[in-house]
Amino acid sequence: MVEPSVYEAMGQPVVGPLDPYFFDVADRVRAMLRAVFGTRNQVTVVVPGTGSSGMETAVANFVEPGSKLAVFANGYFADRLSEMGRRQDATVVRLEKPWGEVFHYGEAAEFLQREKPDVVAFVHAETSTGALQDPRVITRAAHNVDALVIADTVTSLGALAVNVDDAGIDVAYSCTQKGLSCPPGLAPLTASPRAMERLAARKTPIRHWYLDLKMLVDYFDGRKYHHTVSTPLYYALHEGLRLIAGEGLEKRFERHRASHLSLVAGLERMGLQMHVAAAHRIPNVNTPRVPAGVDDLKVRKYLVEKHRIDIAGGFGELSGKVFRIGLMGPLANRESVAMFLDAFQDALRA
Amino acid sequence: MVEPSVYEAMGQPVVGPLDPYFFDVADRVRAMLRAVFGTRNQVTVVVPGTGSSGMETAVANFVEPGSKLAVFANGYFADRLSEMGRRQDATVVRLEKPWGEVFHYGEAAEFLQREKPDVVAFVHAETSTGALQDPRVITRAAHNVDALVIADTVTSLGALAVNVDDAGIDVAYSCTQKGLSCPPGLAPLTASPRAMERLAARKTPIRHWYLDLKMLVDYFDGRKYHHTVSTPLYYALHEGLRLIAGEGLEKRFERHRASHLSLVAGLERMGLQMHVAAAHRIPNVNTPRVPAGVDDLKVRKYLVEKHRIDIAGGFGELSGKVFRIGLMGPLANRESVAMFLDAFQDALRA
Repeated sequence: MVEPSVYEAMGQPVVGPLDPYFFDVADRVRAMLRAVFGTRNQVTVVVPGTGSSGMETAVANFVEPGSKLAVFANGYFADRLSEMGRRQDATVVRLEKPWGEVFHYGEAAEFLQREKPDVVAFVHAETSTGALQDPRVITRAAHNVDALVIADTVTSLGALAVNVDDAGIDVAYSCTQKGLSCPPGLAPLTASPRAMERLAARKTPIRHWYLDLKMLVDYFDGRKYHHTVSTPLYYALHEGLRLIAGEGLEKRFERHRASHLSLVAGLERMGLQMHVAAAHRIPNVNTPRVPAGVDDLKVRKYLVEKHRIDIAGGFGELSGKVFRIGLMGPLANRESVAMFLDAFQDALRA
Repeated sequence: MVEPSVYEAMGQPVVGPLDPYFFDVADRVRAMLRAVFGTRNQVTVVVPGTGSSGMETAVANFVEPGSKLAVFANGYFADRLSEMGRRQDATVVRLEKPWGEVFHYGEAAEFLQREKPDVVAFVHAETSTGALQDPRVITRAAHNVDALVIADTVTSLGALAVNVDDAGIDVAYSCTQKGLSCPPGLAPLTASPRAMERLAARKTPIRHWYLDLKMLVDYFDGRKYHHTVSTPLYYALHEGLRLIAGEGLEKRFERHRASHLSLVAGLERMGLQMHVAAAHRIPNVNTPRVPAGVDDLKVRKYLVEKHRIDIAGGFGELSGKVFRIGLMGPLANRESVAMFLDAFQDALRA
């Protein structure tokens, strides 16, 4: 859900990519992004595409041909990360877990000690399963073997604390349409000084031009023309981040957490079982299991037609096995939760 | 300049990438794009990024590592095409001309016979020089040696006839913010059945995931999830194309041509000389030479400050040597031209 003032912001006049007004907006956007990422990284930029373009920027710049990429694989987007790594002619090694489980320090450390990868990638909040990975588990194990860590924060950024610097994440990327409650089309990305040193030391040129991080930095910091920015999407992102700053990050995260707990309590009262263990749940993507004998497609169709509520189904390993209930931005409040629970109860009984 | 109804269109509610309503919009956008491209290509899609992402989609998909790319180099964007080709580990060969000149059949044929490239790339309307390349000169020479032809129509699409099919262009890409008068952020792209056969016969996997044309086709034709589309940009493009269809393509092209002729006549009355020969001028980017003794920066600054008119300067080879006067979309009319000429006269005298 997108706030009316975010839609309104898109109506401001389009300006060119070297307009000083644009750089004013971009600088403010970047400062606010540093706050939600929890980072002081100067290299906090906006990739000109959706969340997946952020993912590919991370992989294409930091995973060199011939290097080794280790992927923590417990959901859909780990597969996408692996695929992008293979396209860079890297050796991709994976530690697999059933969808919905998370990784613990011992197994992460053992895996990385064995494989000694150059780069490690994991998904912070996996939208396909509802599982939240503790970043410190991965970064501690990765830094033992001197590997860079890429974190997918597509679903988490803006809805819960990411704490890039404290967690020791080297590269994180996200999208605009989930925790930031904006329209899609841009991918915030941040990279640590350590990551940028590695990039500077790359032996082979980057195969991507559009997603070349050094060129993006030269544009945002050096005002050197690269691509023609989509100013309406920046105006929207600026307004979305301004609303987040206005509410306050801690308050916003707490609101998401409280709504999540109230949703889970309601689902459990209805007899549903959550797919992910209590300690590892994403507040903004909730995945109750589909009860035995219930047709999830029918329930979702009924919810849309009768209550105009759109929830997602499971896919991949979890196809037909879970519901995925988004609870983000303006919708993360007790009233929406109560309304949803009534409608969901109705749909399950129908 | 963007019409008010295009800004308004962006305010429609965001929908997800697999929403049937989105595919309705996308199908109508694609049909209208076929009309402005002048093509019956089924593979007429929207690349999720700016014009340069369209360029890289063309190069990364159709120029295989180890193959040979021939670039007709007479301006800034030929350099970008060459750079992208090199990043694909292709051998890039170039036929050079001073910025502002165009290529004729004899030299094109001789160059391509000598080099026998796999792919040929040229810029239809080069915004850095104001020169318009006749596509048939290139396609005829390229097809003699069985090469695919990529045409950059970033500046031409929507302002003048591109005629992809009649001209024998295999792959063409564009942007949304020039001849289509929309906000930037999307890149229309069309590819012939012959181009798609070559793509299917590629020996090496495509290194790009975000700009993988087969995956984009699977998404637009097969409804298979790829990226999360930025619906506000589609709504804007839909409205922009609807306005173009409403005016009628022939009428729109004629309006641009008439405004261009009236601008050139005015500039010549003022004693200025056009940089590009009369037969090869782009109607929507006009490049009079900076008169001797005139400081182009001062003139442009005066125009912005005194008249709020923003014209561009030359760059690269033409830095300080030409003005670049855009005349597109709603601004391409005799009243705007007359107003501009008065202001420009004033600025040159100041």
